[in-house]
Amino acid sequence: MTGHSIKDIAASLGAEAFGDTSIIVTGVAEPGRAGPADLAMAMSARYADQLAQGAARAAVIGAGMDWQALGLQAAIVAPRPRVAMAHVTRAMDAGPGIAPGLHPSSVIDASARIGAGAAIGPFVVIGADVVIGPRARIASHVSIADGAVIGADALVLQGARVGARVVIGDRVILHPGCVIGADGFSFVTPDTSQVERSRASLGRADSAVAPQGWTRIHSLGAVRLGDDVEIGANATIDRGTLADTTIGDGTKLDNMVHVGHNCRIGRDCLLCGQVGIAGSVTIGDRVVLGGQTGVADNLEIGSDVVTGASTIILSTVPPGRALLGYPAVRMEAQVDMYKALRRLPRLAKTVADLQKAVFKSDKTP
Amino acid sequence: MTGHSIKDIAASLGAEAFGDTSIIVTGVAEPGRAGPADLAMAMSARYADQLAQGAARAAVIGAGMDWQALGLQAAIVAPRPRVAMAHVTRAMDAGPGIAPGLHPSSVIDASARIGAGAAIGPFVVIGADVVIGPRARIASHVSIADGAVIGADALVLQGARVGARVVIGDRVILHPGCVIGADGFSFVTPDTSQVERSRASLGRADSAVAPQGWTRIHSLGAVRLGDDVEIGANATIDRGTLADTTIGDGTKLDNMVHVGHNCRIGRDCLLCGQVGIAGSVTIGDRVVLGGQTGVADNLEIGSDVVTGASTIILSTVPPGRALLGYPAVRMEAQVDMYKALRRLPRLAKTVADLQKAVFKSDKTP
Amino acid sequence: MTGHSIKDIAASLGAEAFGDTSIIVTGVAEPGRAGPADLAMAMSARYADQLAQGAARAAVIGAGMDWQALGLQAAIVAPRPRVAMAHVTRAMDAGPGIAPGLHPSSVIDASARIGAGAAIGPFVVIGADVVIGPRARIASHVSIADGAVIGADALVLQGARVGARVVIGDRVILHPGCVIGADGFSFVTPDTSQVERSRASLGRADSAVAPQGWTRIHSLGAVRLGDDVEIGANATIDRGTLADTTIGDGTKLDNMVHVGHNCRIGRDCLLCGQVGIAGSVTIGDRVVLGGQTGVADNLEIGSDVVTGASTIILSTVPPGRALLGYPAVRMEAQVDMYKALRRLPRLAKTVADLQKAVFKSDKTP
Repeated sequence: MTGHSIKDIAASLGAEAFGDTSIIVTGVAEPGRAGPADLAMAMSARYADQLAQGAARAAVIGAGMDWQALGLQAAIVAPRPRVAMAHVTRAMDAGPGIAPGLHPSSVIDASARIGAGAAIGPFVVIGADVVIGPRARIASHVSIADGAVIGADALVLQGARVGARVVIGDRVILHPGCVIGADGFSFVTPDTSQVERSRASLGRADSAVAPQGWTRIHSLGAVRLGDDVEIGANATIDRGTLADTTIGDGTKLDNMVHVGHNCRIGRDCLLCGQVGIAGSVTIGDRVVLGGQTGVADNLEIGSDVVTGASTIILSTVPPGRALLGYPAVRMEAQVDMYKALRRLPRLAKTVADLQKAVFKSDKTP
Repeated sequence: MTGHSIKDIAASLGAEAFGDTSIIVTGVAEPGRAGPADLAMAMSARYADQLAQGAARAAVIGAGMDWQALGLQAAIVAPRPRVAMAHVTRAMDAGPGIAPGLHPSSVIDASARIGAGAAIGPFVVIGADVVIGPRARIASHVSIADGAVIGADALVLQGARVGARVVIGDRVILHPGCVIGADGFSFVTPDTSQVERSRASLGRADSAVAPQGWTRIHSLGAVRLGDDVEIGANATIDRGTLADTTIGDGTKLDNMVHVGHNCRIGRDCLLCGQVGIAGSVTIGDRVVLGGQTGVADNLEIGSDVVTGASTIILSTVPPGRALLGYPAVRMEAQVDMYKALRRLPRLAKTVADLQKAVFKSDKTP
Repeated sequence: MTGHSIKDIAASLGAEAFGDTSIIVTGVAEPGRAGPADLAMAMSARYADQLAQGAARAAVIGAGMDWQALGLQAAIVAPRPRVAMAHVTRAMDAGPGIAPGLHPSSVIDASARIGAGAAIGPFVVIGADVVIGPRARIASHVSIADGAVIGADALVLQGARVGARVVIGDRVILHPGCVIGADGFSFVTPDTSQVERSRASLGRADSAVAPQGWTRIHSLGAVRLGDDVEIGANATIDRGTLADTTIGDGTKLDNMVHVGHNCRIGRDCLLCGQVGIAGSVTIGDRVVLGGQTGVADNLEIGSDVVTGASTIILSTVPPGRALLGYPAVRMEAQVDMYKALRRLPRLAKTVADLQKAVFKSDKTP
């Protein structure tokens, strides 16, 4: 990790610096674990004690904190601490360590076009007519199937799978083990199936139908990821049936997120760990889905929707809603329902008492 | 993509065709995006406007639609639209692009038997005594461990992992990154553990037990997949402890489905995205589990059971039931419970009013 | 599988053996499927009939069972059956079949230090300054990035990904496809985001904020796994932001478990299939989380906590609690709430009757 001066870091943050801003730091650390060459991230008053335990000479602190009283020799004052964290960690990141050039062990089809400055690691397989953008970096064990396009400055990490004809934007990051462009999960029975009957009758038609097998609907569409998209480790995005499954610019998916076939997800969304989106769902812009959120098939989720952890969405959601629970309702309503549910055993007792008092019996007449 | 005449497609569907059935199509598309060489899939009346926006000359339409009024030159009439979709997409699928023959980079044990016409891609590892069926296709980066058997015409996609002694039927498809035959998650403590006590007492025994570590129960069984099974991207199926974990003919698992050790799943089931089945669960035939459904260990799920999204099954289920919710109950009962829960805050208010009227106090006497 | 005498197996179990203890067994099987060379695992009386169906001459039986009446020629009596299962399956496990030595296809950086007796399979990539412990076994297609450390006797299975500077203890098992050390899911907007507002207002502030994109907070920390840890197939553990994400000695994670950045998990925990832990969660020792359990970010879970399947934890949990439900409450309270909920539609009817009787109207006055 190379060194940076406090002055330079402050400048890159657009933040004010105080004290001996010529101090060079080579790492970033939590205040209590920081050594003398580390920049401590101490962005609220509760870190004061930890700073004393560590050995940092310089720190990023929050607005209104007194760097001299904290025993620091230099300080950067960050009005929005997590924004400072983003800039500092980016500056200090050593990067993924992918060597420049094309590793000789890789199997690259002669028809593939590799952009200037692109790097390709060991045991990579690149199919026919693939286009790799300039400065893109492809780590070991990646496979990129026929006709796929990878944007400029993209980063495709270990063992990621890119299916045929998938199009990936500029600066996209694919984390290890993700699968972009598997086949959609789409099957049909020759005659009306048990599940079609259940859906139609809301489960009232319980009699079994004649046994029949599933015929596959093949996925002829691909997947299209916008610019600045990130896909988490071991996440999966399925191809569309006829048109492409699409994810808009700036949207980030966490580890093990599943996006079904034909989904269309807008820009600047965050889908947290283990979120599952069934087939043919449309999602607007700036939607934030908490971890393990599920969305049933063929629904529309408006822009600026936010869900709490493990929210299960079973019907279409208008823009701007904040949802929680299974099934999802407005967070506020969910909290009221939940409080009432906690009191329900006691409420049942009260009703029994009333019943006895009014009807002189524990039975309704 | 090679061309097909409308006449030939109709014949393969067993459907009637009208108009100039000699028209050749080279692709399939949604009506609004179809070009003149595409077959538009316009299987209900709501696609009429989109057909006008696109440039399709030929379409698959639903029963009762008037192809001439839709401005088409040729049409195929499909009585069951999704069945038509299955046939047409299959005919038009370019396939996974696995080159014939054995790629020289692959490491294939001398004792492995490779069937006639099988294809093996780059960086594949095939262990001792493995049997690969005729015409099976193995994509790049796959590993197939000692003694595993892959059926005829099977398709094993990028980076799939097949464990030792796993047996895979004919025409099975393993999607990228799935792991068939990892060890079961089975551990024991020397003495009674906290979790055993909790289960026995339903959580009433909260006092901590003496700390102890976990000893592993090894998995000596394997996994056995029937014919025509599909396993989704990054899905995992664990080996049995003594006998094999088994999945019956025609059953399809979506992406990131987890099947625990010792499970026995019947034929023609559908397990949607992120379903999790704990150890030693028995599931009948034609069961359809919605996305994120969970099944606790050691349960039996009867044939023809259907669950809605995110249903959590904590007790054995008789055949034919349609379930929803956490914990799972009949869909119909769940909807009633849920409606009552939504009205519960108002109900609590009503009871408080009654209490006041009857007991002249907000306290029960 | 090599053979073992009944006498030797009993000695390794510290258990008593009866009958002809010189009998050699070469496998282990369920009683009904056991052949004459198998040791049947028949550890409760309900296996008596199955023993008769099978052909086992020797079995492990439970305390109080009569081996001669069961028709056996030899028996081992196990007071705690699953402990016996652990020992016997370990003795009979043929192992992962990783050939000794370094496979010539692997790409191993010259600066890496490989311990004595370590084995490295085909198509493995090992980065700069990596340390591989003595007798560690690395299966095919694994990647181990710069500066990572793998402990003695560790087992890293097919396609596992170990990120830069990750430290893995002795005897750790990484199952196929797991990703240790992906980047944390941590983003910030330049100004207050929709999700920050929703959290602050509990969803009451539904008005959209000005559109803005997400800036990445890079992960400079690594992941540190203690000794005897197991990580399931396709599981993912993210790096810490500044300090390491840590998992204590003896903790086992099942398939597709997700552990977010900055988590600190104690020792001897079990995290079952598809559990998801959001960022910055602290978990004590001996915690057992049932399948699909979710834990929201920045919470603390005390030691000896146990959760039922699919429990969703949205607030901090004191030590020793047994929890169930969404949101998680004590198992006992959850069962009471759930029973009351099932009766709620009937309760609503009773209240309506009371309302009519008391107020002579179905409206509250």
